[in-house]
Amino acid sequence: MIRGRVTGRVWSSKAIETLPGGALLEVTTEGGASLVAFDPLGCAQGEAVLVTQGSVAAAYFTKIRAPVDALIIGSIDETQD
Amino acid sequence: MIRGRVTGRVWSSKAIETLPGGALLEVTTEGGASLVAFDPLGCAQGEAVLVTQGSVAAAYFTKIRAPVDALIIGSIDETQD
Amino acid sequence: MIRGRVTGRVWSSKAIETLPGGALLEVTTEGGASLVAFDPLGCAQGEAVLVTQGSVAAAYFTKIRAPVDALIIGSIDETQD
Amino acid sequence: MIRGRVTGRVWSSKAIETLPGGALLEVTTEGGASLVAFDPLGCAQGEAVLVTQGSVAAAYFTKIRAPVDALIIGSIDETQD
Amino acid sequence: MIRGRVTGRVWSSKAIETLPGGALLEVTTEGGASLVAFDPLGCAQGEAVLVTQGSVAAAYFTKIRAPVDALIIGSIDETQD
Repeated sequence: MIRGRVTGRVWSSKAIETLPGGALLEVTTEGGASLVAFDPLGCAQGEAVLVTQGSVAAAYFTKIRAPVDALIIGSIDETQD
Repeated sequence: MIRGRVTGRVWSSKAIETLPGGALLEVTTEGGASLVAFDPLGCAQGEAVLVTQGSVAAAYFTKIRAPVDALIIGSIDETQD
Repeated sequence: MIRGRVTGRVWSSKAIETLPGGALLEVTTEGGASLVAFDPLGCAQGEAVLVTQGSVAAAYFTKIRAPVDALIIGSIDETQD
Repeated sequence: MIRGRVTGRVWSSKAIETLPGGALLEVTTEGGASLVAFDPLGCAQGEAVLVTQGSVAAAYFTKIRAPVDALIIGSIDETQD
Repeated sequence: MIRGRVTGRVWSSKAIETLPGGALLEVTTEGGASLVAFDPLGCAQGEAVLVTQGSVAAAYFTKIRAPVDALIIGSIDETQD
C-alpha cells in the first residue's frame, strides 16, 4: 500500500456505467505523485490515507466488476506517525 | 486511477484479432508520461480523462479476453477542478 | 520481490472492514522509496525484509478478500548479504 | 498500453518449459526504457508497436499458462502519427 | 519482461510457509534497479536473465499459492546480444 494525503476530489459526469457511485479523491504521495482513488470511508481534504492498487482494489466491489484500480482502505492515525 | 489529457489517437491496422474495435487514444499525464488507452466514451482531443490500468481495464470487456491494460473510465468535469 | 528495511508502523483506526488485523509496516527500499506492507511474521524496526506486491500479496489471505497489495514474505538473513 | 519501437531480439535457449515458442523482441519506449515483449505478429526491427503488460498479456495464451507479462498487440500505423 | 543480470542471492530463514524452496536471486537491470526473483533454472552469478513479474510469475506454481511476484523465465543467450 502507499501513503498519501487527500488533496482534491474529481467529478465525472460522463463515465462508464460500471463506475460505482461514490467519491473519487485525488491523493498525493510524499514523493509528490498523485493518483485518484475510490473512497468508501468518507475521508476529508488533507486526511492521511492508505491506498491499495491494482486488481486488489477492484476486488473490494463484490457485486459489480468495478473499473477501480485504486482504493482508500484506511485513514492513517496521525498521532502514531 | 490516473488523470490525463487526450493528446492523440493511435491506429493499428496490423493487430491481434482479440483487440476490440474502438478508439485507442494517447493520454498524457500531468507529469508528462504518456500511455495509450481504450476509449469507450468517445472522448475528444484535449479532454481531461480518468484512466484505470491493469487487469481491471481488461475486465470491462465481458465477452472477450481483450488485451487492454488501460481504459478511459470517465471524462473529468473540468469546472470542478 | 523487493528488498527493504522496516522503518515504521502505521495504525489505521478508521479502515474498511476487510482489512485484516495485524501489523502494517512501513518499508523503505534501498532507493529510498517507501511503501506499507502487511507483516505476518512479526518483524522488528530496522529488520531487512522481502516484500511481494500486487494480487500475489492478497492471495496470501485465503478466507477473506483482503485489500492488501504488499506483503512481507520473509526476513532477509543479514549475514548472507 | 505503451508505445515503443522494436530495437532488438532476445534468444533464450535455457528457459522454463512454459515459455511459448516465438519471438521475444526488445522494445524501447520514447522515454528510453526498454522491455522484452512476446511478438505474435512478426514485427520487424524499427517497427512502432503497441505493448500490453501484466496478466492481460498472459491471457492471450488460452491453452497454456504462459509466463509472459508483455505482449505486442499491434503495429502502429506510422502515417497516422 | 525485463532483462537483468544476477548480482546476488538472498536467504530468508524466517519466511511465510508458502514461500517455495529454491533460489531467490538478486537481479539488477541495465538501469540499475534491483529486484529479487525466484530462479527455477539454476542461474549463476553474473548470468543475463529474463524476468517476468506480477501474478504471471506466481502462476508458474500450479500446486501452491506462491507469494512470488518475480520469476526468472530464461537465461539470455549472450552471443545474440
